[in-house]
This record gives sequence, C-alpha cells and structure tokens, in this order.
Amino acid sequence: MASDKAVETSINIPETKSNSKGKAPLVVSSNGGGVKPPPKRGVKKEFAIGDFILRLCAMGATTGAAVTVGNAQQTLPFFTQFFQFQAQYNDIPTLVFFMIANAIVTGYLVLSLPFSIICIIRPLATTPKLLLVIFDAAMAGLTIAAASATASIIYLAHNGNPNTNWLPFCQQFGNFCQSVSGAVVGSLIAGTLLLFILILSAFSLKRR
Amino acid sequence: MASDKAVETSINIPETKSNSKGKAPLVVSSNGGGVKPPPKRGVKKEFAIGDFILRLCAMGATTGAAVTVGNAQQTLPFFTQFFQFQAQYNDIPTLVFFMIANAIVTGYLVLSLPFSIICIIRPLATTPKLLLVIFDAAMAGLTIAAASATASIIYLAHNGNPNTNWLPFCQQFGNFCQSVSGAVVGSLIAGTLLLFILILSAFSLKRR
Repeated sequence: MASDKAVETSINIPETKSNSKGKAPLVVSSNGGGVKPPPKRGVKKEFAIGDFILRLCAMGATTGAAVTVGNAQQTLPFFTQFFQFQAQYNDIPTLVFFMIANAIVTGYLVLSLPFSIICIIRPLATTPKLLLVIFDAAMAGLTIAAASATASIIYLAHNGNPNTNWLPFCQQFGNFCQSVSGAVVGSLIAGTLLLFILILSAFSLKRR
Repeated sequence: MASDKAVETSINIPETKSNSKGKAPLVVSSNGGGVKPPPKRGVKKEFAIGDFILRLCAMGATTGAAVTVGNAQQTLPFFTQFFQFQAQYNDIPTLVFFMIANAIVTGYLVLSLPFSIICIIRPLATTPKLLLVIFDAAMAGLTIAAASATASIIYLAHNGNPNTNWLPFCQQFGNFCQSVSGAVVGSLIAGTLLLFILILSAFSLKRR
C-alpha cells in the first residue's frame, strides 16, 4: 500500500509539472508551484480505462463478425449434374467488403491498444488521445458502413423485393443467412462502441 | 440567490474570467488576474466557425440527398395492358429508410445551428460542445448507415448478382439509378463531414 502511494506520487510530480509548464510558466514561478489547478487525474483515468475496455469489446465484436462471415458456408444436400447449390461469403461482393472492413478495424483496434494504455498511464496527455480520435472516427465510419451495407443485402436475402424481381434465398440457405445476420449485429455493435469511444474521448479532452 | 447572482456575473463578464476561476481561483486572487494562462480564444473561435460552416455544408448535402431520392421517379415509355413500368423510391425499402434518415439528419443539423453559434460567441464554453458531440456521433452513424445501405442496393441495381439471381435494372431505369447514386454520394459526403465535425470538436475541447 505504501509503495503504491509512493508510485502515485512519483507519477504525479513530473506530470503536473510538465502540464503547468505548457500552460503558464510565469504562474508557477511566482507562486512556487504551490497553487496549481487541480488536474482531475482521477476522472480522466477512469475515462481512459473505460476507453480501453470499450476498445477490447469492439475488437471482440469485429473479430467475431469477420470470422463468422469468412466461415459462413452452406451447401444444399441436393445437386444437379452440372451444379451444386452452395452459398459462400464471396458470392456476394458486399460480404467480401464486410469481411475486409471488419478485419481492418480489428487490426486498427489491436494497434490502438498501446495508445489507449498510454492514456491510462498519463491521463493528462492529449496528443495520443487526439491521434486516436482521428482514426477512431474513420474506423467508426468504416464499421458502420460495412455493417449497414451488409444489413441491407441480408434484408433482401430474407425478404426479397417483388418490385425489382429480387427473390429471397434465405429459405434455402437458412444457416448461411443466420450466420451473416449475427455478424452484422456484431459489427453494428462494434460501430456503436466506436462512436461511444469518440464521445468518451471528447469528454476526456474537456478542459476542466 | 446571492451566490446564484455571483455565479451568473462571473460567467457573464469576460469569458476568460470564468475560465481562470474554474481552473485556479487562488492564482487569480494572488496575482490580481494579471498572469493568467493565455486562453487561446482565437483558435477556438476559428474551430467553432469551421464547425458552423461544415454543419451548413452537411445540411446542404443531406437536404439534397433526401429531396433527390424523394423525387426520383422514372416511368418507362411502354406499358402492357395490366402493368406500367415505373420506378419510385418506395419500391425499395432501403430508399425509404435513406430518405427518412437524411430528413432526420437535416432536421437535427438545423436545430444544431444555434448551439454552433453559441460556440462561436463563447469559444471557451464546453457544455454546448459536449452536447453537440453526443448527437453528432449518433447522426454521423445514421447518415453513414443510410448512405452505405443504399450504396449496396444501388450497386446491386447497377451490376446485379448472378450468384443469387438478382438481375440489374439500371439499364432500363437509368435516370432513376443516376439520381439515387448522386443522392448516395451526397449523403456519404454529409456523413464524412459529420465525422470531421466530431474530430474538430475534439480538437476544440482540448485543454490547451
């Protein structure tokens, strides 16, 4: 416990110093560093930990979505002389995009974890947070785009559209459709989590 | 009452005063408010003006997208005894969703303009910015979801999918497809602008 407190203090001193240095060196010198503004490290640290956990959840969701769609395959138990009825993700270009997008987002989230850890260790550092915000926004857009594009296709596969003569195929390929639908839900959850991460970052970057 | 009034005054008088109060009241009192940290109002004001302009652009894009899809209609010049070949937005459920989503985002952007103006007038206020960040994130998600869902459908309408026996209809309904494609591009631009607005808000909320 004592050593814990010592570590806390030793982290506290340099961080606040550099913080006040960036803000107003004159104030510190005139007051001897005794009346610096309270940095609210605790709240910011909680935000950073929440960010890390949300990132892990989103990573799980996108990984699951990519793997599920990649493995979704169904072969019907009957076939003709020339043709075997089989459904696979690469029969539909949107599903290929979905898989690639989710794989990219998973990779990004893995790479972003160290930055998130930096934010936990140094809750007052803004540069890694701003870096994460930019890429988070792009990745949230990518995830939501992939998920909703696939959602509209899978809706079509379930219900069809008589106006355009697009017939549904989920009655035949039920398992395939179910896998893809699950993956879409996972990906949409990941997109929502990324938007939450963005909001959390904004709150964490707030001045006071 | 007295304390209420005191708070009101301290917020109302100059923006920099309330800022320093929230940060370090002791510093102000001991130094007579002479050596406060520079608040960088100018940069924040520029951010706020950029936010306002981006909001106007996004509003134009979503309005255009909603109106274009709502008016997209094409009737082929031939018909049978029982049937007339006509394409309209409500033939495809995704287009209905697209139109409603873009209308909602347009409405939100109109309502958000006053808050954006408040951010220009008071560049250091954080509450309206945080409020905008939360709704901006939701609206960015909605816009991108609507645009990409429609994009996948319109891709199908252009190219079809032989694996699922979904035939393209854009050769017949060329004008209809072109209108919808343009609306999708507009909506995607609006979604990207909203993500930019989010990033801008994060930079604007930065402490120093």
